Amino acid sequence: MNQHPDFLLNKIASPADLKQLSLAQLTQLASEIRSLILEKDSVEGGHLGPDLGIVETAIAWHYVFDAPKDKIVWDVSHQTYPHKMLTGRAYGWLDPDRYEEVTPYSNPDESPYDDFAIGHTSTSIALATGMAKARDLAGENYNVTALIGDGSLTGGLAFEGLNNAAVEKGNLIVVINDNQMSIDENVGGVVTSLQKLRESNGQTAENPFKALGFDYLYEDQGNDLEAMIKAFEAVKDTKHPIVLHINTLKGKGYQPAVENKYAHHWVLPFDLKTDKTTVPSPQGPTAASTVIDVVKDELEHKKPLLTINAAIPGVFGLDEIKKNYPEHYLDVGIAEQESLTLAAGAARNGAIPVVFQNSTFLQRAFDQLSHDIAANNLHVVMLVAGGGITTNSKTHLGVFDQVLVSNLPNWKYLAPTNLTELRAMTKWAIEQANGPVAIKEPVLPLPAEGKAGHDYSQIHYEIIPGEKVAILALGDFYQLGEKTQAELAKVGIKAALVNPQSANILDEAALDRLAQDYQVLVTLEDNAIDGGFGQKVASYLGDQNILVKNYAAPREYTDLETAQAIYQRMHLTPDQLASDIQKLLG
Amino acid sequence: MNQHPDFLLNKIASPADLKQLSLAQLTQLASEIRSLILEKDSVEGGHLGPDLGIVETAIAWHYVFDAPKDKIVWDVSHQTYPHKMLTGRAYGWLDPDRYEEVTPYSNPDESPYDDFAIGHTSTSIALATGMAKARDLAGENYNVTALIGDGSLTGGLAFEGLNNAAVEKGNLIVVINDNQMSIDENVGGVVTSLQKLRESNGQTAENPFKALGFDYLYEDQGNDLEAMIKAFEAVKDTKHPIVLHINTLKGKGYQPAVENKYAHHWVLPFDLKTDKTTVPSPQGPTAASTVIDVVKDELEHKKPLLTINAAIPGVFGLDEIKKNYPEHYLDVGIAEQESLTLAAGAARNGAIPVVFQNSTFLQRAFDQLSHDIAANNLHVVMLVAGGGITTNSKTHLGVFDQVLVSNLPNWKYLAPTNLTELRAMTKWAIEQANGPVAIKEPVLPLPAEGKAGHDYSQIHYEIIPGEKVAILALGDFYQLGEKTQAELAKVGIKAALVNPQSANILDEAALDRLAQDYQVLVTLEDNAIDGGFGQKVASYLGDQNILVKNYAAPREYTDLETAQAIYQRMHLTPDQLASDIQKLLG
Repeated sequence: MNQHPDFLLNKIASPADLKQLSLAQLTQLASEIRSLILEKDSVEGGHLGPDLGIVETAIAWHYVFDAPKDKIVWDVSHQTYPHKMLTGRAYGWLDPDRYEEVTPYSNPDESPYDDFAIGHTSTSIALATGMAKARDLAGENYNVTALIGDGSLTGGLAFEGLNNAAVEKGNLIVVINDNQMSIDENVGGVVTSLQKLRESNGQTAENPFKALGFDYLYEDQGNDLEAMIKAFEAVKDTKHPIVLHINTLKGKGYQPAVENKYAHHWVLPFDLKTDKTTVPSPQGPTAASTVIDVVKDELEHKKPLLTINAAIPGVFGLDEIKKNYPEHYLDVGIAEQESLTLAAGAARNGAIPVVFQNSTFLQRAFDQLSHDIAANNLHVVMLVAGGGITTNSKTHLGVFDQVLVSNLPNWKYLAPTNLTELRAMTKWAIEQANGPVAIKEPVLPLPAEGKAGHDYSQIHYEIIPGEKVAILALGDFYQLGEKTQAELAKVGIKAALVNPQSANILDEAALDRLAQDYQVLVTLEDNAIDGGFGQKVASYLGDQNILVKNYAAPREYTDLETAQAIYQRMHLTPDQLASDIQKLLG
Repeated sequence: MNQHPDFLLNKIASPADLKQLSLAQLTQLASEIRSLILEKDSVEGGHLGPDLGIVETAIAWHYVFDAPKDKIVWDVSHQTYPHKMLTGRAYGWLDPDRYEEVTPYSNPDESPYDDFAIGHTSTSIALATGMAKARDLAGENYNVTALIGDGSLTGGLAFEGLNNAAVEKGNLIVVINDNQMSIDENVGGVVTSLQKLRESNGQTAENPFKALGFDYLYEDQGNDLEAMIKAFEAVKDTKHPIVLHINTLKGKGYQPAVENKYAHHWVLPFDLKTDKTTVPSPQGPTAASTVIDVVKDELEHKKPLLTINAAIPGVFGLDEIKKNYPEHYLDVGIAEQESLTLAAGAARNGAIPVVFQNSTFLQRAFDQLSHDIAANNLHVVMLVAGGGITTNSKTHLGVFDQVLVSNLPNWKYLAPTNLTELRAMTKWAIEQANGPVAIKEPVLPLPAEGKAGHDYSQIHYEIIPGEKVAILALGDFYQLGEKTQAELAKVGIKAALVNPQSANILDEAALDRLAQDYQVLVTLEDNAIDGGFGQKVASYLGDQNILVKNYAAPREYTDLETAQAIYQRMHLTPDQLASDIQKLLG
């Protein structure tokens, strides 16, 4: 039920309704939108600081421009809650029963006011430039805006976008939303550069946007509705590329989010009175803490480690390294390419880079994995989080990291099945010196204790023997292998179980033995089936007399489904697998 | 035999020997180096303009700095001929018998003066920053230089590099080699920006490098030895990041290369007197001309095509489109990410982008293929050249494009076996409107005539029937399939032959029939085996009673081997395949 029938927002069916409002009413709207963001986020979690900071910008843009004829591309689109509320989707915040009906990122399936499904950063300028090109080819006439944060500017594609946008012949508006933050503090020369612009109220001649050829306007009061309306009116219908640089306050309207912007970029459900999360913390060691423990231990033993991440230290628990070993810590910004190429340079000169990547964002660095690291066979260690089948939006899936890493020469991609093994693999990867090693941090919780090797330079399978069928269960799907084994035991089938340890190095001798001793071999992996582990096994055993069946995610983008629903649909539950295997055994 | 025993260069065993020379002698050395570049290139082909333009810079750098203690990373490293001649490898130019002993890019296996195998652009600043980080962690003290051209600056990784380099605490020298060219003319705001700097002799306040926080020095006379020695002396041992921006003349010393820089970036063997290539042009239609014919035809039919490439129009014959349909042509610079994300924006707004990629450089745009295009299921057409097993340097291999494209949802990856089919596939890809389609332009010459479909929305295999063994031969390896079939016929085995048409969409019904009718199925593809076509077939047929054997390139970086040697080693010759198949048939 609508919890706020009195809100003015109820009268905004589309942006056209905004244009009838007075400044006082628009100000009231801003206040309502802020309270709704907080209300829903406190229950559901979500992005907080970016949305609180952009409220006036979103209102002013829709007040001045005419969407959906005029276009706006929101970079990352994690800041689109106000935009969504203003474009017919306020019910997704007003009514808790309808919270799930509005998705967290821009979504063309949801509204004609959203042009792209977007979740990765730094794409908006290129997308907007393409839209402007198509508009001009069609001889049409409307405004195209890209809105990008200062954090997203650190990604190379943002610069490629600026470079090309700068020489466009027609209307193209690039709004730089400068809130002086990435997720953590923003980094690099761009920070220096934007600071000079802010401190001179946009007047310094050291203006990188003007240097590239852009027209430029600065608005210091990015959270002032009247100022923002004037700013947008000033750039509307401009017939050449222009940068509108606005200064906004991330988290505005919620003091804890202003005071600790890093912790409030994205939040778990929390108590609005105390600001404390209502979700209990995991007890005991996690995959992240296990890896950090190894890193600390190696640092204490004077290893020349350089831990590197691309703007997401929190995912990996790197804050502790940042604080206690600052010279061994580097955040390169939202710049995955840089994180790996810089690592290559450091490795060549004797440091041991340990690079922390999120599977979905690692997609931006395939060439760096290959050309910069693997072709030079450099000792780079890479931890990959988030690689698996998840409930995420389709823009944030992590099912392609094995495609990226596993198919390259020289990379060893290890996949632990328990935290003891994760620890051993991380330690080995750091202490060996023979080329690059990647390790898949599980997305499913792993048992803390278990078997582990101490040398992964060669992969030797340990086979828990059985009859007729052998299950090769990779990484965090080893547990699925155990459960499937248990299901099969109920019907009298004793399946063999194997931990393959690596997503891309096969123990060929063991596979040959398995082909001799079993009728059916099943592979399980928490990843896309295409380009993954199972297909390598199927290919290797293709000319031997054993049936091989690969289980993993089919080639599709899942989108905000529950994990259970996805598993069910993909035949990845123990009972489905057991039933399939019985059929295969005839 | 050494053709120039009289050259001063013979006395330069290492850069230390340079330091004894007078300016007049250094000038003589520059002249010798230029004549050697021309002499060898005229016989062997190779990069020309970039090397002629950098001669004084290379001499001055080695005169001032102390390699290999001081480091220099040459971006792309196509301009390292002078550097190689100065670091003990002059024999590779002086003596035609030893031309092959020195490789065309920087190569740590060849010399301690080369730190990385490099062939892709825009990596040098990140690599140098990593080297500087490692130096500082180790408490050592020397100079680290990255040298990058203005063309390479258009790649996003170069900006990520600058952003991070700008805030380094110690010595880091970034030389911007501004020759006002990429391969073709350089593009974008960076051109504007560098022009303002040159025209003000480095004095304009609109200095993007200073804006980022770099110290900055400009040298207008980048081909003057004395000036360059002074410039390097001025930046040597600087304890903070500094940009040295130098103005050089691409092609200097060879007038045809100065007058037509684009045609002389890289050259085939040519006649030094006439500047005419000594290699005969291919007769009749090529893959590139076939595609361009379709594009022109669609443009004549008023299709809103936007042809896009990333700084390599010549590879695809796009010069004709640039000239005759300028509004339908876009070169985004060396910016593969931009080329695809911009295409996504254009597609969303009703244009039909046709993006031209080179397999090896496409590696820089996996996320754009996935997040920006495929997850939005946008109608983008992509032609991929250079995808296959080649004699290239390990930095320029094109065996991973199927890994990149084939494993993503929504992308159809088509692989023609003759030019008629290439034409039909290109036309269909443009005229359909249901998501992205990629087409593999063959690396091997294809027959001009042959069978083709007209609708590739579904893939239906046409099977040339045989007995016992079926050969699925993809794309330009269809010819290998035919030859293998002929070899088998000699020993009385009549193999079936199938053109699978697509690298990633299987005709499952046809595969089921093949599994019924044949004992052995062999896949052939001009690509890496891992993550490729054959593994998909092996996986699909894994639980059926047919043996499957995949043939393609194993997981390794080949490096300047002849194609025949590679094929032989990989068991990809008709007689090897025929012999293997006989064994499989038992």
